[in-house]
Amino acid sequence: MNHIQSYISEHKDRFLQELIELLKIPSISADSSYKNDVLKTANNIQESLKQAGCNHTEIYKTEGYPIVYGERIIDDNLPTVLVYGHYDVQPPDPINLWDSPPFEPVIKPTDKHPDGAIFARGACDDKGQMYMHVKAFELMTRTNTLPCNVKFMIEGEEEVGSVHLGTFVKNNRDRLKNDVILISDTGMIANDVPSITTGLRGLSYVEVEVTGPNRDLHSGLYGGAVANPINILAKMIASLHDENNHITIPRFYDHVEELSNEERAEMSKAPFSLENYKKALNIEAVYGESGYTTNERNSIRPTLDVNGIWGGYTGEGAKTVIPSKAYAKISMRLVPNQNWEDITQLFKDHFERIAPKGVKVKVTPHHGGQGYVTPIDSLGYQAASKAYQETFGKTPIPQRSGGSIPIVSLFEQELKSKTILMGFGLDSDAIHSPNEHFGVWNYLKGIETIPWFYKYFKELSQ
Amino acid sequence: MNHIQSYISEHKDRFLQELIELLKIPSISADSSYKNDVLKTANNIQESLKQAGCNHTEIYKTEGYPIVYGERIIDDNLPTVLVYGHYDVQPPDPINLWDSPPFEPVIKPTDKHPDGAIFARGACDDKGQMYMHVKAFELMTRTNTLPCNVKFMIEGEEEVGSVHLGTFVKNNRDRLKNDVILISDTGMIANDVPSITTGLRGLSYVEVEVTGPNRDLHSGLYGGAVANPINILAKMIASLHDENNHITIPRFYDHVEELSNEERAEMSKAPFSLENYKKALNIEAVYGESGYTTNERNSIRPTLDVNGIWGGYTGEGAKTVIPSKAYAKISMRLVPNQNWEDITQLFKDHFERIAPKGVKVKVTPHHGGQGYVTPIDSLGYQAASKAYQETFGKTPIPQRSGGSIPIVSLFEQELKSKTILMGFGLDSDAIHSPNEHFGVWNYLKGIETIPWFYKYFKELSQ
Repeated sequence: MNHIQSYISEHKDRFLQELIELLKIPSISADSSYKNDVLKTANNIQESLKQAGCNHTEIYKTEGYPIVYGERIIDDNLPTVLVYGHYDVQPPDPINLWDSPPFEPVIKPTDKHPDGAIFARGACDDKGQMYMHVKAFELMTRTNTLPCNVKFMIEGEEEVGSVHLGTFVKNNRDRLKNDVILISDTGMIANDVPSITTGLRGLSYVEVEVTGPNRDLHSGLYGGAVANPINILAKMIASLHDENNHITIPRFYDHVEELSNEERAEMSKAPFSLENYKKALNIEAVYGESGYTTNERNSIRPTLDVNGIWGGYTGEGAKTVIPSKAYAKISMRLVPNQNWEDITQLFKDHFERIAPKGVKVKVTPHHGGQGYVTPIDSLGYQAASKAYQETFGKTPIPQRSGGSIPIVSLFEQELKSKTILMGFGLDSDAIHSPNEHFGVWNYLKGIETIPWFYKYFKELSQ
Repeated sequence: MNHIQSYISEHKDRFLQELIELLKIPSISADSSYKNDVLKTANNIQESLKQAGCNHTEIYKTEGYPIVYGERIIDDNLPTVLVYGHYDVQPPDPINLWDSPPFEPVIKPTDKHPDGAIFARGACDDKGQMYMHVKAFELMTRTNTLPCNVKFMIEGEEEVGSVHLGTFVKNNRDRLKNDVILISDTGMIANDVPSITTGLRGLSYVEVEVTGPNRDLHSGLYGGAVANPINILAKMIASLHDENNHITIPRFYDHVEELSNEERAEMSKAPFSLENYKKALNIEAVYGESGYTTNERNSIRPTLDVNGIWGGYTGEGAKTVIPSKAYAKISMRLVPNQNWEDITQLFKDHFERIAPKGVKVKVTPHHGGQGYVTPIDSLGYQAASKAYQETFGKTPIPQRSGGSIPIVSLFEQELKSKTILMGFGLDSDAIHSPNEHFGVWNYLKGIETIPWFYKYFKELSQ
């Protein structure tokens, strides 16, 4: 299919420029002060879908940010691919750690991306990877090689838990009817080690508030005599892991699937260097649950991390205060079979139970989602595997990811179709971190690989 | 001495108005953005001292904020009183918990202050209490009843550890030569239960920084596999107290004086209602070191409190991040005989030692000071006790305070004189908290009591 190569080389500058324009809009869904930018991004996406060849597009209002929908139905007898992605991005802070402003994209080469990478918040997660699908779709329509019907569903609340997507999917089952769901919102092992994500972790995200005295107190006059909410919060958080870094919440592990030794042996075949891993993060040692390797700890095992903590005086200099309140944002990564709503309840009950008298504790569930596993014998996985073989010259490795895309398990439940996670980013692309970037080579390689997926998915479906 | 009453009733409105003007200047020493306001306050104090009758005033520059000095020497054969106070204030945050702006003083009655209290940052700590001495001095000079020589030393860095006062005192021993040091920067039990503070706790204030990975990480991709600086910091903080709320730092208690049962029995006579204490703070239970009462926990026992903690995402919504760094400000209140510099070193060594591999820990000593005890048989204490008897009609109770005035022990060491802590504030005045206030009655009662101290100190000195 030479037309793929030639169309890409002819239009790649425009592909890049269009993505850069998209990345300039700070569509931060977590911070309401960016509301207009998020909405602007939705309109931008709708326009792109029209340009690319959708013969019907629509912006679906929700109680939160809208969902952009677009479709091109060429023949009801052909299989239908539903592409999911998101146009919202993570907050960029800490801003001061960015080498260039997060919403002023620049292209610079890196060790892993000698051909250059686009540095900007959302470059990889998920504007860049979502936009690969829009451009691959444009390629197929302009070259009259589109082998399947296509539907796009691009949301604006993924980074805040896809709060309203569930309702939308439930209410639009027919409109969203499809034979396979395609998502590029994960990564691959390396540019010369293609991989396809077959497992995702679930998530439970909560915020906790510990209240001691009804006002901030002088730590000299009251210190030692009243419960200090910060000390108490630290004690409670510390107690959530035992000396083996097992999570201590009762019944937390009840439904965790233990992988067989065969499966663990299979996993361990993925190329991994602990030395490089530690070097890349500049840490002396890794840290985690006893009895599991690093790759197991961040994929097949559930975890509990504090994502933010604050209380008392955090300004310049010193303030000898016992604050009235202390807060933390805590998230748990879950594995398939752990129900996120049950886990959230278990956390809430436990955290409230361990609070000492002298403080009041409030636990506010934030959002969450179930884990997911894609069977590698599914049509979609087979089609994806063949597509990678065409463009990478080797068979991709099936890989469990530690990340979560809460909505994937809901897709299967509501739409009865499998999701294929075709990620082209690298772990080192610093998503959710300062200096997020996405390789130019990866962006174009994605645009090149996607049409092959459509071709093989149609052929295998017949 | 009727002239005292009459002078006060004649001038009390002006006394209040002048204090209110002083309170309008946000002299926050901890925040460098208020530098000009702090300097402006120093000039204001110098002017007040001139007006009140100092025949020599001077502003001593330091590497930090200046020290305002003023004196009136009437006869070298008369005893000399050195008044110490500070013109800087604590940061007002959390601002949103103030009922009126912290630097727009208002007078409102409260349960404990039916005649009204001045609400403003610094009203009690220490502008209001320091200014009582300026006005009492004015009273004595204008009525030609000043019985002693007077020296004023008013600094601008008390709330940040009196960083440069020590050097100043060492370099000006002769200028500061005195027979007793008078400070009003503490409290008393109640308006009808006068007390004099005879003990202060020492202080060691440090800031800690825990660094994990070299950048913020996605908690899905890395969660469970690398040390999360917030979880680790919480674990380390939690480990600083054992199940009896004893501090676990090795050798921390080595020099702590254990009071005799007689002394503890004496202390327990001070009127105290645990029910009212809990009610005032709206807490269900007190919390502290096993084997000690609330009054002992916050006065004769050392403590360790986290005064501030921060790390990760603390904004609106959710961010699934493992931060690169987490921070805390930690202060320890010390009792007499504990050397604050030794304790700071013990903390540093211990905290660095307990850090697990996988994180780096930095401990930055901030400031500190020694504890202090005033003997109740000293001339100064006796003079103060007689003064209170005149104006309160009862003998004041000697009381240990949990607070710290780091400089007091240095005064004794360098100037060889005792300090008398004549505090007129109440615990409920919310110093270091939102809605700090100082009773109008207390302010005027201070101005009334101080001249009696001078009278009796002179008489007892002869």
